[in-house]
Amino acid sequence: MAERFPEVPGFRFAGLAAGIKKTGLPDLGLAVAERPIPCAAVFTTNMVQAAPVKVARERLSSGYAQAALVNSGNANACTGAPGMAATLSSSAAIAAALGIDVALVLPSSTGVIGQLLPAEKIVAAAPALVDKLAVHGAGDFAQAIMTTDKSQKTAYRKLALAGGEVVLLGVAKGAGMIHPRMATTLAFVFTDAKVAPALLRGALGQATERSFNVATVDGETSTNDMVLVMASGVSGAHVNEGSREAAQFEQALAEVLRELAEQIVADGEGANHVAEVQVSGTDSDAAARSIAQRVATSLLVKTAMHGKDANWGRILSAAGMAGVAFDPDVVSIAIDEVTIVRGGLGLGASAEAEAQKIMAGPRYSIRVSVGQGEGKASYLTCDIGHSYIDVNAGYRS
Amino acid sequence: MAERFPEVPGFRFAGLAAGIKKTGLPDLGLAVAERPIPCAAVFTTNMVQAAPVKVARERLSSGYAQAALVNSGNANACTGAPGMAATLSSSAAIAAALGIDVALVLPSSTGVIGQLLPAEKIVAAAPALVDKLAVHGAGDFAQAIMTTDKSQKTAYRKLALAGGEVVLLGVAKGAGMIHPRMATTLAFVFTDAKVAPALLRGALGQATERSFNVATVDGETSTNDMVLVMASGVSGAHVNEGSREAAQFEQALAEVLRELAEQIVADGEGANHVAEVQVSGTDSDAAARSIAQRVATSLLVKTAMHGKDANWGRILSAAGMAGVAFDPDVVSIAIDEVTIVRGGLGLGASAEAEAQKIMAGPRYSIRVSVGQGEGKASYLTCDIGHSYIDVNAGYRS
Repeated sequence: MAERFPEVPGFRFAGLAAGIKKTGLPDLGLAVAERPIPCAAVFTTNMVQAAPVKVARERLSSGYAQAALVNSGNANACTGAPGMAATLSSSAAIAAALGIDVALVLPSSTGVIGQLLPAEKIVAAAPALVDKLAVHGAGDFAQAIMTTDKSQKTAYRKLALAGGEVVLLGVAKGAGMIHPRMATTLAFVFTDAKVAPALLRGALGQATERSFNVATVDGETSTNDMVLVMASGVSGAHVNEGSREAAQFEQALAEVLRELAEQIVADGEGANHVAEVQVSGTDSDAAARSIAQRVATSLLVKTAMHGKDANWGRILSAAGMAGVAFDPDVVSIAIDEVTIVRGGLGLGASAEAEAQKIMAGPRYSIRVSVGQGEGKASYLTCDIGHSYIDVNAGYRS
Repeated sequence: MAERFPEVPGFRFAGLAAGIKKTGLPDLGLAVAERPIPCAAVFTTNMVQAAPVKVARERLSSGYAQAALVNSGNANACTGAPGMAATLSSSAAIAAALGIDVALVLPSSTGVIGQLLPAEKIVAAAPALVDKLAVHGAGDFAQAIMTTDKSQKTAYRKLALAGGEVVLLGVAKGAGMIHPRMATTLAFVFTDAKVAPALLRGALGQATERSFNVATVDGETSTNDMVLVMASGVSGAHVNEGSREAAQFEQALAEVLRELAEQIVADGEGANHVAEVQVSGTDSDAAARSIAQRVATSLLVKTAMHGKDANWGRILSAAGMAGVAFDPDVVSIAIDEVTIVRGGLGLGASAEAEAQKIMAGPRYSIRVSVGQGEGKASYLTCDIGHSYIDVNAGYRS
């Protein structure tokens, strides 16, 4: 664990099984700073938002918090006033056990929708959870937030700033092929950099646009999605607005989130291939992104990926649905370095056979160039196969 | 055949096997009027458009045509200048055999993308095809345009107008779960009503909005989609702009197209259930349509349909992604008459069990009411199962 979950000065972590999951697996995680520290988050844009999302968003309006509480096994979404009460009482129990103001505890939940969170289990577990808090507890925290994830997801960066070295530790949950009741992406980044709330918020917004917002599995967003960054400042290394350090910090944050997003896309139920759809040559980056997103979310492209089929007709046709004007007769398409379409025309069976060898691998790029301008964008996607149907067509139990 | 493909005064039809399909099944169809008649069409909005789409659109700018030529087995899309030449020469051969101006022949193609249409086969078959033209040949025409369709698709309306009785015969192809190389929807409506081109165009636009544009299988649009209506006028019954007859005609046209669209959605590779997503209570019809479309295209909803699971959390969450503001706490959801969510809260296991009985059937409605205004809309969709993956992940051959 030590390598994957190194210490982040200023934080302690814990995780345990509180009995929310029927399986008895760990389902309650806590991350705590030494004092109220700058925090920023982005939340789901779904109109339907779980109680913990509403509470965390409200509490974060100050720009400061001290603890992040997560449960898996129950999303506490679509649970009305009793659900709100459950979120409030469970975070209050943690605040009491920590001896801090409840407004400093940010709750989050992931799991089945429409069932009330069993707050009493969290209330009962709160003292033990706080007792377990440890500098090297991030692995336990990561374990507790897993749902259908096949593996823990983590990313780490060290960064030499003018004021000293800082670290960023990212921990996430979310499976590529999204599970019926557990569609949520939760990601946490802990850093000891000294960053003011406004800068943290801006950096997170930029970094999210370059990571989670350009990764897709099945085009769904959940009622509970959240990406949270907490900055303890314990390193003493300042990151000031407009400074070189700010650019470095934002870049490192984007890299951590990008790595987490890629781990989520790759950890698919039945997904064997991750592709980065790279679009270039549009009039603007926004146009490139529209095309990349349309290709990345096309079911026909995703099933072709599953079949390791260099089916460029589907790629080109998906690009043509993006609502972006381009001339199909100048489009090129390549799988990594192997061009299969030039000037809008297929280059034939031997080029496709070369491309299909690459598509047998776990990761490759699908490159679409529309030959008009300097715009470019990329989007992560994965294949879709039988396991997605099996997992998602099963009855809830 | 006589009942499904009745005579439409003023038209003759034919279909035969020209050798374009490797299977030797019929693959060339022709519908011909006695003279140039008013015609209107809507075409795919994909930026990538096959040669026959470009040619038919250009020829239709006059508002008149006399013959519709269709081949299956080859889409002639992404085939460049040789593809354009193939479309021009094959329609020229038909025009020559008919003894009419080539500008009166509207070509269309459906099948594999990226392979050149073997025009020589159409040229060779043209005389025999024209020889076969018959008043009762619509069944042969319908047979010739099929690709992965499990059955011929047809719809029929008789309409008593002030000037006499008119008929509308619709013929379509397209499978619910869209086949890799044959993603195209082609629909043709033949009528003996007397309608000017501009009115025909307007009526088709309206009718398409109420049929094909609110039906989804996998969110893909092809390079070759076309809906064409041809009005022979032989009945002598005039349909004039703004008249009661115009409203009647438009309604009948919409019904024919709606019936064809529903047959296409139901004819899915592995699809067992068709649902009409009915959204009401929004501020506007457009808002209702956005929600209905998002629910109808949600992979998680479509896999829940496949599993016969009244998983309202997915329905509500999909609705929440539509970009339409609503209060989740006043939403109701029902499967046909069985309400499973009221005031944003699930009504429990027994209501869901009732709903799941309905979801075992071939057709039902998913009703979402957001309780705000008078807006409403509906959208047809189908479930998605293993066969979709099998068909679409297979290698092209």
